[in-house]
Amino acid sequence: MIKKIGLIGLGYIGTTILNAVSEEANENLTIQAVYDIDNVKMKDVAEKHPSIRLMQHVTDFQDCDIVVECAVQQVVAEVFDEIIKSDKYFVPMSIGAFISLPGLFSKYQKLAEIKKKNIILPSGAIGGFDCVETIKLVGIKSAKLQTRKPNRAFRNNSYIESNNIKLNEHSPVVIFKGNAKLAATYFPRSINVAARLALSTLGPEKTLVEIIADPSISKNIHAIEIESEVGKYTFLFENNPSPTNPKTSWLAALSAIYAIKSI
Amino acid sequence: MIKKIGLIGLGYIGTTILNAVSEEANENLTIQAVYDIDNVKMKDVAEKHPSIRLMQHVTDFQDCDIVVECAVQQVVAEVFDEIIKSDKYFVPMSIGAFISLPGLFSKYQKLAEIKKKNIILPSGAIGGFDCVETIKLVGIKSAKLQTRKPNRAFRNNSYIESNNIKLNEHSPVVIFKGNAKLAATYFPRSINVAARLALSTLGPEKTLVEIIADPSISKNIHAIEIESEVGKYTFLFENNPSPTNPKTSWLAALSAIYAIKSI
Repeated sequence: MIKKIGLIGLGYIGTTILNAVSEEANENLTIQAVYDIDNVKMKDVAEKHPSIRLMQHVTDFQDCDIVVECAVQQVVAEVFDEIIKSDKYFVPMSIGAFISLPGLFSKYQKLAEIKKKNIILPSGAIGGFDCVETIKLVGIKSAKLQTRKPNRAFRNNSYIESNNIKLNEHSPVVIFKGNAKLAATYFPRSINVAARLALSTLGPEKTLVEIIADPSISKNIHAIEIESEVGKYTFLFENNPSPTNPKTSWLAALSAIYAIKSI
Repeated sequence: MIKKIGLIGLGYIGTTILNAVSEEANENLTIQAVYDIDNVKMKDVAEKHPSIRLMQHVTDFQDCDIVVECAVQQVVAEVFDEIIKSDKYFVPMSIGAFISLPGLFSKYQKLAEIKKKNIILPSGAIGGFDCVETIKLVGIKSAKLQTRKPNRAFRNNSYIESNNIKLNEHSPVVIFKGNAKLAATYFPRSINVAARLALSTLGPEKTLVEIIADPSISKNIHAIEIESEVGKYTFLFENNPSPTNPKTSWLAALSAIYAIKSI
């Protein structure tokens, strides 16, 4: 059976998915419909892929089996209830929405297990969630994310400016230590990774985040540490940038495609 | 829809699965049938769980949706073709079979993607396969497993004896460096972890394994290192033993239950 994808958002990740599914002539997946607020992008899809339907609004995905959000956080909130009412699969890329938007995290947490299975969270720029979900059968004691980025990643960050934090050109500086919820507030560019871990572990309040400005590195590095009665687990992700979009970790873009293929 | 499980093997992991599914009153899973060569174990199940059917032979799983093997490697080979012919899901615990038994690895590799999806490989005493599978969309350059165990784990190992390797009571000794296939031959107790990694990465010949006898530790520790154009990934698993079976890493037993629940 061919699964029909509704794709919301035609930015870098959306376009990557569109191309991956279209070029591969995948026998099990097809792009059924797309949506973007930018009419130029919609027109472009209509010309290149005349068989793809242009959606009229974000919830105009009635003929789709899988809805993929790669737009902005607010779209996750706008489509969430409509998805949950149906049997469709939902692949949200703006996972930060579950931390930033009031109520969305608890709404997700309260879903019945069977409904949760229909929400496929891409692992983003991290991973190891097979291990995390397995440990959860017993329980997690602590969950910590340490994100290291080059100094330039923190240029014009208002938290750093208002707290008068000085970055060092020669050695790493810990610029934030706190929970995922606060991290998301002050460092919006680290939000999806923190939200992804929080969603699968102890939630936005109890999942700990440390952010380090490291002048010695040129890429983003994420380290996860999970403690449990089952054992201690440490995962290190040294991500290269995507060849076509240096702002995004290649792993994050690929994780969207993997999430869809795993359905 | 309730998924019916056929369980082959009533050892520690099989019994753990039987109890977990039975006690939890899971709405989506039920143990439909069991098989073990030990008639005492079969009789015991018949008494405690009269609704469970006793299988007459290893492929007597026609009324099951999921077949779980937690017996011995040979059983994987015995049921594999019968499973592949059907639409049943297969959860093999003795993953080492894919390295040890001639032809089974290439048989697995040659399966169409859609058939491969029906073979759910438990992550065992390791994990991070969400990340590994995502990286594979681009490609893996190298895959390495480093297994550290206490000295006592290598007592009476014939490879160590015949190669006259001396364990040290004060510092770690690298006792093996080679590919997963060789590791499986000489260290049968490390075989499932090596096979699990090999199956998802570069295969038994190119997946590298290092085994260390470490007198300073009391549990099994596995480290995975994957290199790719996408980035470099390092995962460390410090596993506590299962509370009811000290010989098995708790994570490995739980991974069987997680694998079944993820279907």
